[in-house]
Amino acid sequence: MSNTIGKIFSLTTFGESHGVALGGVIDGCPAGLEIDIDFIQSELDRRRPGQSKIVSQRKENDKVEFLSGIFEGKTTGTSIGFIIRNENQKSQDYDHLIDAYRPSHADYTYDAKYGIRDHKGGGRSSARTTVSSVVGGTIAKLLLKKYGIKISAYTSQVGEIKLLKSYKDLDLSKTETNAVRCPDELIADTMLKKIEQMRKDGDTIGGVITCVAQNVPAGLGEPVFDKLHADLGKAMLGINAVKGFEIGSGFEGVKMKGSEHNDIFQVTKEEGRRTKISTKTNFSGGIQGGISNGEDIYFRVAFKPVATIMQKQMTVNKKGEEVELAGKGRHDPCVLPRAVPIVEAMTALVLADHLLRNNKNIL
Amino acid sequence: MSNTIGKIFSLTTFGESHGVALGGVIDGCPAGLEIDIDFIQSELDRRRPGQSKIVSQRKENDKVEFLSGIFEGKTTGTSIGFIIRNENQKSQDYDHLIDAYRPSHADYTYDAKYGIRDHKGGGRSSARTTVSSVVGGTIAKLLLKKYGIKISAYTSQVGEIKLLKSYKDLDLSKTETNAVRCPDELIADTMLKKIEQMRKDGDTIGGVITCVAQNVPAGLGEPVFDKLHADLGKAMLGINAVKGFEIGSGFEGVKMKGSEHNDIFQVTKEEGRRTKISTKTNFSGGIQGGISNGEDIYFRVAFKPVATIMQKQMTVNKKGEEVELAGKGRHDPCVLPRAVPIVEAMTALVLADHLLRNNKNIL
Amino acid sequence: MSNTIGKIFSLTTFGESHGVALGGVIDGCPAGLEIDIDFIQSELDRRRPGQSKIVSQRKENDKVEFLSGIFEGKTTGTSIGFIIRNENQKSQDYDHLIDAYRPSHADYTYDAKYGIRDHKGGGRSSARTTVSSVVGGTIAKLLLKKYGIKISAYTSQVGEIKLLKSYKDLDLSKTETNAVRCPDELIADTMLKKIEQMRKDGDTIGGVITCVAQNVPAGLGEPVFDKLHADLGKAMLGINAVKGFEIGSGFEGVKMKGSEHNDIFQVTKEEGRRTKISTKTNFSGGIQGGISNGEDIYFRVAFKPVATIMQKQMTVNKKGEEVELAGKGRHDPCVLPRAVPIVEAMTALVLADHLLRNNKNIL
Amino acid sequence: MSNTIGKIFSLTTFGESHGVALGGVIDGCPAGLEIDIDFIQSELDRRRPGQSKIVSQRKENDKVEFLSGIFEGKTTGTSIGFIIRNENQKSQDYDHLIDAYRPSHADYTYDAKYGIRDHKGGGRSSARTTVSSVVGGTIAKLLLKKYGIKISAYTSQVGEIKLLKSYKDLDLSKTETNAVRCPDELIADTMLKKIEQMRKDGDTIGGVITCVAQNVPAGLGEPVFDKLHADLGKAMLGINAVKGFEIGSGFEGVKMKGSEHNDIFQVTKEEGRRTKISTKTNFSGGIQGGISNGEDIYFRVAFKPVATIMQKQMTVNKKGEEVELAGKGRHDPCVLPRAVPIVEAMTALVLADHLLRNNKNIL
Repeated sequence: MSNTIGKIFSLTTFGESHGVALGGVIDGCPAGLEIDIDFIQSELDRRRPGQSKIVSQRKENDKVEFLSGIFEGKTTGTSIGFIIRNENQKSQDYDHLIDAYRPSHADYTYDAKYGIRDHKGGGRSSARTTVSSVVGGTIAKLLLKKYGIKISAYTSQVGEIKLLKSYKDLDLSKTETNAVRCPDELIADTMLKKIEQMRKDGDTIGGVITCVAQNVPAGLGEPVFDKLHADLGKAMLGINAVKGFEIGSGFEGVKMKGSEHNDIFQVTKEEGRRTKISTKTNFSGGIQGGISNGEDIYFRVAFKPVATIMQKQMTVNKKGEEVELAGKGRHDPCVLPRAVPIVEAMTALVLADHLLRNNKNIL
Repeated sequence: MSNTIGKIFSLTTFGESHGVALGGVIDGCPAGLEIDIDFIQSELDRRRPGQSKIVSQRKENDKVEFLSGIFEGKTTGTSIGFIIRNENQKSQDYDHLIDAYRPSHADYTYDAKYGIRDHKGGGRSSARTTVSSVVGGTIAKLLLKKYGIKISAYTSQVGEIKLLKSYKDLDLSKTETNAVRCPDELIADTMLKKIEQMRKDGDTIGGVITCVAQNVPAGLGEPVFDKLHADLGKAMLGINAVKGFEIGSGFEGVKMKGSEHNDIFQVTKEEGRRTKISTKTNFSGGIQGGISNGEDIYFRVAFKPVATIMQKQMTVNKKGEEVELAGKGRHDPCVLPRAVPIVEAMTALVLADHLLRNNKNIL
Repeated sequence: MSNTIGKIFSLTTFGESHGVALGGVIDGCPAGLEIDIDFIQSELDRRRPGQSKIVSQRKENDKVEFLSGIFEGKTTGTSIGFIIRNENQKSQDYDHLIDAYRPSHADYTYDAKYGIRDHKGGGRSSARTTVSSVVGGTIAKLLLKKYGIKISAYTSQVGEIKLLKSYKDLDLSKTETNAVRCPDELIADTMLKKIEQMRKDGDTIGGVITCVAQNVPAGLGEPVFDKLHADLGKAMLGINAVKGFEIGSGFEGVKMKGSEHNDIFQVTKEEGRRTKISTKTNFSGGIQGGISNGEDIYFRVAFKPVATIMQKQMTVNKKGEEVELAGKGRHDPCVLPRAVPIVEAMTALVLADHLLRNNKNIL
Repeated sequence: MSNTIGKIFSLTTFGESHGVALGGVIDGCPAGLEIDIDFIQSELDRRRPGQSKIVSQRKENDKVEFLSGIFEGKTTGTSIGFIIRNENQKSQDYDHLIDAYRPSHADYTYDAKYGIRDHKGGGRSSARTTVSSVVGGTIAKLLLKKYGIKISAYTSQVGEIKLLKSYKDLDLSKTETNAVRCPDELIADTMLKKIEQMRKDGDTIGGVITCVAQNVPAGLGEPVFDKLHADLGKAMLGINAVKGFEIGSGFEGVKMKGSEHNDIFQVTKEEGRRTKISTKTNFSGGIQGGISNGEDIYFRVAFKPVATIMQKQMTVNKKGEEVELAGKGRHDPCVLPRAVPIVEAMTALVLADHLLRNNKNIL
């Protein structure tokens, strides 16, 4: 069951980088949800390689085919099966990798665990598997839209280049205006140059994605182990190359004193609306005691540099011999731009699940 | 099922800060494991308040009573029930909190979610609930010991005071020699002074705990969603006051290039032992593609400053009125020292579960 | 996780026949449910030994102690822990059983599975463990009452003595008027005599319990694997000594033709109420395609004769030697009367879970 | 998660009768299992319509396409995705059913639950969905074969025609020699005539399938709720049209006395083999206390008559009007022959899951 995420709104996925097809099953989606195929395809296109010159130039059309659970454009409440066929598989690119363990890839660990391994493109360990998460996550997004919930992720750091502004001081509608998916044009441009340099060098670079979920109602998250940020953290850490997750004040917040960090409650009353309890600051990141409090949920996700580089590296093969390895094929010098929709999709899966789990908590 | 962690080796907990008792059920522990009650009690004592002057001075004996699943000192393979009775409940300390929402506590969110709330000591949202995790985690530790796996956590940062040395350059056996649980005596002393200052000021401070799991065999962790570090991250983020988790190179690693970050494989042959594949560096933190690779697993956990401060704060009550709040009772100026055994316990729960899940992956 | 039942409203249990205590954790019960302790205790009393001369004369007070999850008489939405302490443990009654495998008990299979076994009173395999199910099930009953759902079980067969009337032709309020818990007095009396004869002979006898759930709304049950009757069947087959389950027309229905068996739909309109779709017959037993249709849900549960008899039997011990065994202690000549509240409790657990699972299926 | 069965070896399915495709995901299958595609296809052919004149004459080729999790003919330990495309969909056969609720079908209950329904061929409620279970179950069979476990089901009753012999007195290899899948030729012939008569009458008939699992090792099954027969019962009751399940002595056993019903243990010693503990009788059906004891596991499954008949019936439509309904299309007069491989497949899924769950119960 390790290929399943979610308890009520759940996604189970399958598929390898260079197998016949990838896909999944969404179980627990409420009946009657309109499925906007164009929107789903557009989200897949955001994740797709070849969309700009700073990402992998592989050609993958990533056309999703829905097989069940949708009738006359709406969900029926039964399980939704879908597939994305693999195309343009240059499997011969990987022939030199049959035995060699690529550094910081999963070749060695898969062999240690399973004793057998689909070496082509990393098989199941490839980031290509996130294509299924994007399909599932986009359906979750459609559900969340019904409740007015909006999720916006963007690249906030590439290597040493860090966007210091808070999400509140950015125009998040500009994220899609550049290839890096950073809403600050100036920073985006610097990041772009950094990534292009990496590509020329045959090297790669890491970065950070910031994600904001707005208009999430208070009450989502279930103590003590399924706290909302615990499930968000798990979902993010499940994305390929992720090494860190922090919410609200995060690692910086440890330096603060309680008297500074505490988010003071206040009562606001907008004209013609009900009195509303909110917090003056939001170091909590919209979650307190594991439950959403109605403020913006925001968190940061750390991505290590892509392990596949075009430079020569020494490594070890299955027989325990030291061998030299040179990168081939078409890879990403920086995974961040394509990871933005993946972060959003995983966020949507967690929020949709907790939204449904939160029903009927009170008699 | 949100009070359950683990799929094979699972722990389900219950209990509130000032209720009758806390406790839990461990399901899936293999039969025949010797239960060392003294060891379990000693771990509870590490978590207990009142153990030093820098932690809460509440008196809790935290005596665990096992009710089932153990026969003549060994586990029987059936579910293990246990309870820890609450004593010394100064519930009247909390009477002023019946209606007021304490800033950065879970009072407001519990009310928003459940419409009803045990206000005494935070009820189910209290860090007191981790007492059950420590019991479960210590049994997991006993299981892991059978496989030679060792888990060591320690306080590596308090406020701005950061221990810069790697765990490899520290004598981890010294962690218990001081009240802060930092293995570097000099740093420990500085941290101690900082915490004492906070206590005098009626304020609190955050910090970071580093945890290392050694001798974990290669092969633990299940792609794609139950990656080992994803489950570790979720377990850590489920601990009260945790706002961040990073493994291996973490957030710092995003600045690195792939050519620097990649952990090069090597073959080593110790005298009289089999050839072994290891990595020259360990930026991966012992996990690659979500599966342990046999190297040390190490990660960092960020704790925000404790929300309960002895200073006056403004807040809002249930009726939407602004009220003034003053801290009362016996609280921790810094949660880090007592959180060290909790981090270890949660780590043990995740590793024990994945150890059992990994059986029979290969025919 | 094999000691847990339910996905949203779940019960996890622990405890052995002669251990310190039995108990459990209820997770997922909505907040705000009033807990009627007297009602819970009265249900435990229905299951208790010693309540009449045809059941085991063991003395067990079966007082439940709630430890958490309830505040000022109402559920808080957090996990509810409870225990029932064992008393009057005549463990020495079982000393002769340390090595011998009692026929048709679980002694041999527990040894085969776990290699270690609490032999006293059957340990975890004892029907005494159902005391936890009754506590959990009674809380489920309290929840179902809020929705008007009523569950009524009764003894419908003891050995060859079978109550041929349908539940619709019986006054189910009379079930508790006799020690056998059969609502037909004449049949009850004959059953009583049969059971008394068995007791005198040192023998035991099997029987059937019929259970009816009324006023269950249409829509409960989740295809394809969690059909409502599949979950009911699993819950019943999990009760000690159960060997069969049939719903609606059951095994007799296989002889019918489709034209006879089909439940024809009709429209009824009671005065002052909405038009209602119902079925003229109810061979389906209130469930069609795995989902409740609003008709009465009724099913039958087969119990084998109790394995513990007071006669001498040959058996085999752990060393593989043939040994003679004689029953000792205080046992039930027929398990049916005490199993009636257990069947009801397990039914309530399944219905409460599916009631909560059914929320928000339609947008 | 209601479309998932199994905790370690799990199957998640999707697909409707007349949708694009059906399929599923198998998660938790150990790595290194050889996948015999021909065997899988042959099992699908046993379930397929059109295979004889007593079953539905629909044309479905039921070709399975594996999409992932298999590399060079062996499982890789990662999730196995597969699809079976629907062909020959005479959807117009169902146009008259858009609004009418077919008696004893799931039309009404799906509408009540989901408010939307794929009416074509019953959509997700169709027995066609079992095609995915057969694929998953056949892979489970391949795994069980490695352990020598053999599963054999057969038709043991059609209407009033009942095969009275025990499975031990039958040559189970003859099951496939006739269209009814009854290993007794004479009885098979009588059943055949009965079914043909039903077909001529435009009517249908129910029946019973008996299933035997041989060579199951002692130790499978997990008390208290996941008893082996409880999980088998749930799996069987999840099959379309099943109304009853009984194991071992079942409903007949309730008439027996404990002194007759108890299975006496004995020690046997076959030449050149270890001493073995077995039982002289097997009223327990191979499971005691919810755990397999090494004896044959056998049980019976009751199927109601197929609801679709070719005769006219009155019913009600969505608007609450009474309407007349006449059967159209190509349906089964008796579901038993085609259900035999389905019963075997579901049995295999449960046994494979418990086989893997049983690993490492003893340290």
